[in-house]
Amino acid sequence: MKPNFHILIYLFSFALFSQKSHDKTNATDDRPNFVFIVADDLGYGDLGFTGSTQIKTPNIDKLAQTGIFCSQGYVSSAVCSPSRAGFITGINQVEFGHDNNLAHSQPGFDPQFLGLPIGQKTIADYLKPLGYISGIIGKWHLGYEDQFHPLNRGFDEFWGYRGGGHDYFTSNPEAKGYMAPIECNYKTPQPITYITDDKGDECVDFIKRHKKEPFLLFASFNAPHTPMQATKADLALYGHIKDSKRRTYAAMVHRLDINVGRIIGALKEYSLDKNTLVVFISDNGGPIDNGSINSPYNGKKGTLLEGGVHVPFILNWPKTLPSGETYSHMVSSLDIVPTFLAFAGGNVKEYPFSGTNLMPYLMKGSKQIPHDNLMWRFTISAAIREGDYKLIRLPDRLPLLFHLPSDISEQHNIALDNLDITRDLLEKLGKWDVSLPHPLFLEGAEWKKQQLYQYNVNYPLIQP
Amino acid sequence: MKPNFHILIYLFSFALFSQKSHDKTNATDDRPNFVFIVADDLGYGDLGFTGSTQIKTPNIDKLAQTGIFCSQGYVSSAVCSPSRAGFITGINQVEFGHDNNLAHSQPGFDPQFLGLPIGQKTIADYLKPLGYISGIIGKWHLGYEDQFHPLNRGFDEFWGYRGGGHDYFTSNPEAKGYMAPIECNYKTPQPITYITDDKGDECVDFIKRHKKEPFLLFASFNAPHTPMQATKADLALYGHIKDSKRRTYAAMVHRLDINVGRIIGALKEYSLDKNTLVVFISDNGGPIDNGSINSPYNGKKGTLLEGGVHVPFILNWPKTLPSGETYSHMVSSLDIVPTFLAFAGGNVKEYPFSGTNLMPYLMKGSKQIPHDNLMWRFTISAAIREGDYKLIRLPDRLPLLFHLPSDISEQHNIALDNLDITRDLLEKLGKWDVSLPHPLFLEGAEWKKQQLYQYNVNYPLIQP
Repeated sequence: MKPNFHILIYLFSFALFSQKSHDKTNATDDRPNFVFIVADDLGYGDLGFTGSTQIKTPNIDKLAQTGIFCSQGYVSSAVCSPSRAGFITGINQVEFGHDNNLAHSQPGFDPQFLGLPIGQKTIADYLKPLGYISGIIGKWHLGYEDQFHPLNRGFDEFWGYRGGGHDYFTSNPEAKGYMAPIECNYKTPQPITYITDDKGDECVDFIKRHKKEPFLLFASFNAPHTPMQATKADLALYGHIKDSKRRTYAAMVHRLDINVGRIIGALKEYSLDKNTLVVFISDNGGPIDNGSINSPYNGKKGTLLEGGVHVPFILNWPKTLPSGETYSHMVSSLDIVPTFLAFAGGNVKEYPFSGTNLMPYLMKGSKQIPHDNLMWRFTISAAIREGDYKLIRLPDRLPLLFHLPSDISEQHNIALDNLDITRDLLEKLGKWDVSLPHPLFLEGAEWKKQQLYQYNVNYPLIQP
Repeated sequence: MKPNFHILIYLFSFALFSQKSHDKTNATDDRPNFVFIVADDLGYGDLGFTGSTQIKTPNIDKLAQTGIFCSQGYVSSAVCSPSRAGFITGINQVEFGHDNNLAHSQPGFDPQFLGLPIGQKTIADYLKPLGYISGIIGKWHLGYEDQFHPLNRGFDEFWGYRGGGHDYFTSNPEAKGYMAPIECNYKTPQPITYITDDKGDECVDFIKRHKKEPFLLFASFNAPHTPMQATKADLALYGHIKDSKRRTYAAMVHRLDINVGRIIGALKEYSLDKNTLVVFISDNGGPIDNGSINSPYNGKKGTLLEGGVHVPFILNWPKTLPSGETYSHMVSSLDIVPTFLAFAGGNVKEYPFSGTNLMPYLMKGSKQIPHDNLMWRFTISAAIREGDYKLIRLPDRLPLLFHLPSDISEQHNIALDNLDITRDLLEKLGKWDVSLPHPLFLEGAEWKKQQLYQYNVNYPLIQP
């Protein structure tokens, strides 16, 4: 194979990185900044470039159009906290027992373990010795106890809240849960106005303050997670949508898009846009009950159907990555940490990542693929995708096997017609499953019971 | 249906029990004593009446021949501690999180929960207010912490050890584990000689001391659990067995049988034999590595194949039960508590037993069956038996379905040839499984991993 121009740039850049010092003031330091934007409970089909007919997301669309859209992009869990534990460590969270969302601790489980295990390193831990400053704006959801706090997990700055969600309009110094006060270690946090805008403000300010040093900005939006709350102005823009929940949802995603645009705008304003690697994903699929639509995918948040784990996935880095391409091999949110680390000059091979540095694969002409297969385990379910096939294992029925290229919406279970594939995938999945450690905490028995029903529902598969 | 004589006796007795007081000194108190004899890791085929060609067990055989042999008798777990948690409460232990053996507590699990949950009542708790005295001689294995101690769980007397096994010859005041000292609350325990004999001594003494009051004696033998240690005299009796482990095992079972005979002898000596309900089971199948043989059943301790959970199961009560009968409908070790409680005059319907009072079913002429199905969940496996079919669910393969009457050794998986049955049983099993609470403790990830392999082994199916 003839090495192409992009690969040469990549290899050359990499050689440079590995030799030079990481002095922040080094004028030749052309390592990228990283901006990692995460939407929360976003429906797959609710962006312009993924097919929405109702919601306008020009800024996120443009990010895809000027970068690489990974059309087969997955997260490692179908719910928030474990998905975040995965993508922030680069290790499949079930490999260290973070299988589940953080519920009240169950009888027999030690609440001191209720968070991202302190032995696990985050992307901020990896980037710190390489001279990067790291900030997180928004939702943490990796533990309430102080040992789990983002400022104890490698981040230099935090404006946000420890829990899994927040009210969009109200923050109260006395409140807990969704109305809890904003924590911030670099200023007295302002009263929130509409929290998606407030996060946008903080992201813009972060970029401004750190424009002269290598940085990681983790823009952790809660939009469009419940509670369903939008501004009057945005609701007016979507007044033509009759269903009020869907209307509110659309307005919330619209406001998310505006603030993604503001982040990109700030990068441009400070001439950082060319050399910043921006990644955009959702932490899992839409839960439907927030008004989201995972079209064309079946299922929802909490299931291992595509609608639970297949997410919009964009990498954008004008200086180095191809522009306007679609990458159609499987990639994982677990790849983000090793990818960032490689470009920051770290040695990815030193660490036990489940993910892989994507850059060599994304370059034009690469014949290799990042993953032979991807596997998931969540409460009562487990799944494997290998090549074109995906198998889902549930405790109350025969396995589900889908051929995704011909059945993108997972409507036709072909397990019994393809017993060799079924047996092979079951065996791989089962061996992996039993090799994993015990979960460190669980969500409660009631949640587990609800899981089966979610696989018996007909989900909307086409745009409204 | 014309009620037969036995049922009339039963109903009449029950009416009597429910009206009279439970004064121990009441001369008309003809409620039975209970002697519950449990072997430990006994191979199914290692008794005379279950087909052993090598091991002589005339006393246990006679118990079967003068009582009811339940040929389809099951325990609720394939390993010791959860099986004991099940049969001592009458509730399937997975319904209160006692799924597993007591290992060192795993990260994230609270060691204070490492035992039979203190909210669960034992048979001794049930019998105490009815005027029974309860003693346990031998192995406890339901928690080391004081809150789990048998004397805190309804038992009046304890001669034994809290752990899961014991050395047969040695007990050391300074030692822990298998050499731990014997605990006893009614005397300074004697030095042990051969522990199976010592337990026999204590059982005989218990019967002598309590011959004038209603009692429950739980004779909790460790024979033939490891360590494999027999007396020289017993080894000499089995000198013709070439394999030394099998020879030792045979000698240990022989010695168990002798001491079962001594217990029955003591009942006779004090004229208690007619009105004592004696139950004999093993806590699970033979683990093979102790020299046991589960012939004709496939599998071993730890698996949900018949060799793990199908056990010798005898009820013997000359005064009331038929003699020399074989009962061929499924019964469970979970039935023992409600059966005892009913005959002690308790109201079984007041409590959430998984098991059922067997007595109406065991009477001649009964057309009802005690259980439509039985279900198991153990680490990575789950199983259901309904009627003649048994389905086992494992994470790395399609389900196993066996038709037991035509395939007693579970050699022919007919799941794909009987999809309706497979789907029906999978659905029942899965719905039950996900309805269960979380386990309170686990055995360690390594144990889980070993489980799959056990289903790929060829086990000895015929007597040596």
